Amino acid sequence: MEISHIEHIGIAVPSLDEAIPFYEKMLGLKCFAIEEVADQKVRTAFFKVGQTKIELLEGTAEDSAISKFIANNGGRGGIQHMAFCIQDGVQNALNEVEAKGCRLIDKAPRRGAEGLNIAFLHPKSTVGTLIELCEDPNK
Amino acid sequence: MEISHIEHIGIAVPSLDEAIPFYEKMLGLKCFAIEEVADQKVRTAFFKVGQTKIELLEGTAEDSAISKFIANNGGRGGIQHMAFCIQDGVQNALNEVEAKGCRLIDKAPRRGAEGLNIAFLHPKSTVGTLIELCEDPNK
Repeated sequence: MEISHIEHIGIAVPSLDEAIPFYEKMLGLKCFAIEEVADQKVRTAFFKVGQTKIELLEGTAEDSAISKFIANNGGRGGIQHMAFCIQDGVQNALNEVEAKGCRLIDKAPRRGAEGLNIAFLHPKSTVGTLIELCEDPNK
Repeated sequence: MEISHIEHIGIAVPSLDEAIPFYEKMLGLKCFAIEEVADQKVRTAFFKVGQTKIELLEGTAEDSAISKFIANNGGRGGIQHMAFCIQDGVQNALNEVEAKGCRLIDKAPRRGAEGLNIAFLHPKSTVGTLIELCEDPNK
């Protein structure tokens, strides 16, 4: 598996309307896209910081992974996952880590925000951190 | 405040000895430094991923912030903070955000791992995420 950089950091927030002004007015970053990903029951807001994006995530249903993360975190937001950009294919990377004994959440890539192909590794196999692998199918 | 990139992602782990092999053997990254920061009661291990470092953090005392994070997280590791590289000075950035109403953990930069000047913003003011500002004093 060839990782080039950290594609994004996924941050759970109770409300995009509350969080976006912090990132814009306090830190001076600019929100360049807001997107709803119905499949994952989230609304996302994106900021670019060097090579990496910050992806703020607001749950749109109580049973979304983001809403559960926030409920388990005393109602507060926090960093929920990090995503690596994979140069030699997400499916290839999944095959490689599964063969080495890693538990997968996704056995095959699916479509995520921004049209990326994404897949998650299971935190039980990653020393606790939710790790996403992604690739741009148009590159 | 001028942020150039994400300097590092700080990940709490119960044990560096358990975590380093995951990052090296499963993900193919290379640990390039291990350092103890006595002041923060942590041992750290660093990996480079594009512009950004992954900083694994193991607490060396029960009252370290990392040990508390893991205890509050059911004994599991997870992403504890993200650090921005500041181009125009950490003290300048602290002054700027404090004037805008941000609560600070550090009123002035202190010395962190790798000899960087670092300061933390309080998660009560950052929509839940522990945010570190840092600069290399030799640049």
